[in-house]
Amino acid sequence: MLKQKTSHPKGNALYSGVWGLIRAGGYQRALFVQDLSAALVVTLMLIPQSLAYALLAGLPLQVGLYASVLPLLAYALFGTSSSLSVGPMAIIALLIAITLEPLAVRGSDEYVALAMLLALLSGVCLVLMGVLRMGFLANFLSHPVMAAFITASAILISLGQLKGITGIAVEGSTAWQQVNSIFQSVHSLHLPTLALGVGSLVFLLLMRRFLLPLLAPLGLSARGVLLLSRMTPLMAILVTTGIVFALGLHEQGVSIVGALPQGLPQLQLPQISLAHIQMLIPGAILISLIGFAESIAIARSLGAMRRQRVNSNRELLGLGAANVVAGFSGGMPVTGGLSRSVVNFDAGSVTPLSGVMTAACIALILLYFTGVLYYLPHAVLSAIIIVAVLGLANWQECRHLWNYSRGDGLSWIVTFIGVLLFGVEVGLMAGVIASLASWLGRSSNPHMVEVGRVPGTEHFRNTQRYDVERSERILTLRIDESLMFANAQEVENYLLNMLAQRTDVEHLVLMGSGINHIDASALDMLERVNELLLEQGVQLHLSEIKGPVLDRLQQTQFLQHLSGQIFLTQHQAIQTLDQLDKRVD
Amino acid sequence: MLKQKTSHPKGNALYSGVWGLIRAGGYQRALFVQDLSAALVVTLMLIPQSLAYALLAGLPLQVGLYASVLPLLAYALFGTSSSLSVGPMAIIALLIAITLEPLAVRGSDEYVALAMLLALLSGVCLVLMGVLRMGFLANFLSHPVMAAFITASAILISLGQLKGITGIAVEGSTAWQQVNSIFQSVHSLHLPTLALGVGSLVFLLLMRRFLLPLLAPLGLSARGVLLLSRMTPLMAILVTTGIVFALGLHEQGVSIVGALPQGLPQLQLPQISLAHIQMLIPGAILISLIGFAESIAIARSLGAMRRQRVNSNRELLGLGAANVVAGFSGGMPVTGGLSRSVVNFDAGSVTPLSGVMTAACIALILLYFTGVLYYLPHAVLSAIIIVAVLGLANWQECRHLWNYSRGDGLSWIVTFIGVLLFGVEVGLMAGVIASLASWLGRSSNPHMVEVGRVPGTEHFRNTQRYDVERSERILTLRIDESLMFANAQEVENYLLNMLAQRTDVEHLVLMGSGINHIDASALDMLERVNELLLEQGVQLHLSEIKGPVLDRLQQTQFLQHLSGQIFLTQHQAIQTLDQLDKRVD
Repeated sequence: MLKQKTSHPKGNALYSGVWGLIRAGGYQRALFVQDLSAALVVTLMLIPQSLAYALLAGLPLQVGLYASVLPLLAYALFGTSSSLSVGPMAIIALLIAITLEPLAVRGSDEYVALAMLLALLSGVCLVLMGVLRMGFLANFLSHPVMAAFITASAILISLGQLKGITGIAVEGSTAWQQVNSIFQSVHSLHLPTLALGVGSLVFLLLMRRFLLPLLAPLGLSARGVLLLSRMTPLMAILVTTGIVFALGLHEQGVSIVGALPQGLPQLQLPQISLAHIQMLIPGAILISLIGFAESIAIARSLGAMRRQRVNSNRELLGLGAANVVAGFSGGMPVTGGLSRSVVNFDAGSVTPLSGVMTAACIALILLYFTGVLYYLPHAVLSAIIIVAVLGLANWQECRHLWNYSRGDGLSWIVTFIGVLLFGVEVGLMAGVIASLASWLGRSSNPHMVEVGRVPGTEHFRNTQRYDVERSERILTLRIDESLMFANAQEVENYLLNMLAQRTDVEHLVLMGSGINHIDASALDMLERVNELLLEQGVQLHLSEIKGPVLDRLQQTQFLQHLSGQIFLTQHQAIQTLDQLDKRVD
Repeated sequence: MLKQKTSHPKGNALYSGVWGLIRAGGYQRALFVQDLSAALVVTLMLIPQSLAYALLAGLPLQVGLYASVLPLLAYALFGTSSSLSVGPMAIIALLIAITLEPLAVRGSDEYVALAMLLALLSGVCLVLMGVLRMGFLANFLSHPVMAAFITASAILISLGQLKGITGIAVEGSTAWQQVNSIFQSVHSLHLPTLALGVGSLVFLLLMRRFLLPLLAPLGLSARGVLLLSRMTPLMAILVTTGIVFALGLHEQGVSIVGALPQGLPQLQLPQISLAHIQMLIPGAILISLIGFAESIAIARSLGAMRRQRVNSNRELLGLGAANVVAGFSGGMPVTGGLSRSVVNFDAGSVTPLSGVMTAACIALILLYFTGVLYYLPHAVLSAIIIVAVLGLANWQECRHLWNYSRGDGLSWIVTFIGVLLFGVEVGLMAGVIASLASWLGRSSNPHMVEVGRVPGTEHFRNTQRYDVERSERILTLRIDESLMFANAQEVENYLLNMLAQRTDVEHLVLMGSGINHIDASALDMLERVNELLLEQGVQLHLSEIKGPVLDRLQQTQFLQHLSGQIFLTQHQAIQTLDQLDKRVD
């Protein structure tokens, strides 16, 4: 249990899922009010998002709403985060479209059936990852890779939605193909659609940017402004639906939602064939990994603000259950969405019951209010998607990463260009390889310094950074890296070059405070250096070798061959060797 | 320059190649005698090896001799090691056969032409690697991978040579294919060949094992015995040649060398076509890398015994020149051979001129004595190959590596099985991947400990290994690994779990002596942990952060967000925080 210093209704890790809540006993009325108000706000956000992301995934719009009922209940039962709002999400919708488009016609019955199967498979993947404790796999999607992937996806998604707000057909899964197709079909521009789409886009962007300065003088709190700004998509929907209805724009060719089936999703087994499973497995794995990496990042950040720890294996089970249920109830793959979760958190959701209430609200819409959506133009949904994903894009990150470390910056750039030009799978794979390579490159070029004693202390520091004392006869070198096959040669060269510059040295002390492992190739190198030094009458000593490293060395012949000694501390090494020299004199 | 404590004619790095020798001025008579005697001994070893490895590579036997003339001169001019004996080598001969067999019929004119082109391409690869300073690439062939590769190759080569000593045809490039073909053609067993082959094999093995105990009582020195044992292949050749001649065994179907062309190799351009180059490039790269890795390892080990440093980029140029020349003078790819180099070193070669003299001796053989080899049976050459490569195999290494580290042991096993069952390229690739994965696995599971003060000192050690003092209010944790994307999550879990177990802690000190880098993903994690701790009223401090790591952190916002302080030493951290607590009380 985490230590508590301040009291908070949800201040420790005891509550996990609805079960935890029941075990904890009692659900006070104050909590209920908080949860319900958060659920209402999230529902108002979830309606436009569900419709928009179903559109983005190429699915009939009710599928988005179906994915926002039972999956939310499943997550509430098995998940751990009280803030994470599960449901359709933009990046996952993009991945669904990329996975399914080669296999079936967008929006066809087969396409819908495949989407359900994809949700089921993703759920199974997530549950398996949870049971096998393989959540660590998401760690390989390093921060730069995920950041670049999301920004590049935002561009791909926005380009794809240009069709919705202009009527110009956009094809292809890479930026190049999309831009190309836009130029080829620029003639299909449809003015009423353009007016609605661009109008909505401008409205949403202006609201996002100027709502706060506009309302601040009216005395509205920052939280109020945030919640209001999240409602702007709903406002855009209401206004544009009204315009279409009033002006009869759908008769002029503006694409509208039309009749949505009324009623709750029917529970049904997705059509399962081995051939389909084989085709969908790669996509399902990708969706699981990305969905999990995104959700866990959101849950952790929000959890950190409330001193809640997130258990990644439990999260895998929660998300897995949500997706399995989505597969059985006519839905699409779901995951935690960032903007909804932030609103959920901010609106004060304190227990997982908030998710249950949201599901109930969406169920009510499905039962009684789908007719309201008849005149809703697709153009406004496209505008909502574009504004949402542009909010996810973070251009500054590349510069920040580059400034912090070239390797991280390069991983960002490789992923970004890879996703845009060669597609999501290639881009992510290239990004992971770039992350690994940059780390390999770093380890292959270790930081190595000569150290000396900080006068009057027992501490030893880099001679080039600090004003330190060193002895003529003792050369102490510190290698700030584990010794391994990729850097053994460079370390050997450094040791021998440093020694060659100092002719009076009789003792070479290797200070091992930064050496976390020594692999077999590096051990070979140390044996050779020891021999070479022995021939030159220089003793090789080790100091500050870590316990686990020393344990391993003790199983080899190396310590018997070693011409010098092993010292617990660098201070001991210098004292002993100084004494030794004086005695010889 | 290396420091000199003992005098030695060749005791520093000044001499490099013949040019260095000339620059150094003067070549004393004593050195000449040493070099010449070493050259004679090496020549006597090189004759059977050249013939045997040409046979192994599937080439006419004179090609092996051609590869032992001009390439030796080229290496003497451009290389740096005075001990490395360049020429045909077993593992490289195997790689030549594997590369050329799919392209041409063994021993055909086209096969010979391709071998020359392969030598030229390998030479160009090596020179390019030298010029571009890419010698570090050989580092990726880690010690376990090279050791397993050599042992597996020894088995492949021995199986292949069973044909030579039994007459049974052996086909295929993997152990499985070879064993299979042996069973299928066991009927082709040829008794006179078997007698000669197995007889030679037994003679060579017995001499190798029992020569030393046998001769020791006669007062022969260990060095004398070593040199004598290296001459046993020559003795076997002389004796079996005599037997074949006396009994006329070649008329009973025993395969003999027959007439070798007399005279020096003619300088000629290899037949070059773009199609050939494309086919040979992968093999040439493999031969360059393996040949270089082997040579540099030999040169370094022998150099260490004489305090000679080996410059790997110069070595690349030397080996590259040797191979280019081999390509132009009817030879085959060459590299440094271990057994010859050891003999060369042991027989006292002190300057590169020893190599020049060896080349001259082989040239004399080619000019006047090829007739002597007419009745030489192939069986004895196969026996020589088998004994030589079994000498290279090292079975113990697997156990040693496994005991030292599971990761290194696994790399050995993966390479070994891969080479035997799936061929050289697949096996080596799998080995390199296994090396990288084991290193990744190690870094993903960092060693993390709580530390306390060794009483009465300023030193801090693992609480579980040492009897140390710790404070109730200050928890100090040391992470013995760079923080990066693959371990960020695990580190976060560890920090928070340790904190959860100690309810009175007010300060968490992260001791960074083992942290050599912090990548962007880990920085993200630290930001989150800092925030989470702040909520709990716990301050996060850093101590013993290395200069380069701190430099990077200073470019970010992290240090401004950090709730605690940064301490140069852990001792300072504890002193300051103790004071702080007392003042608050």
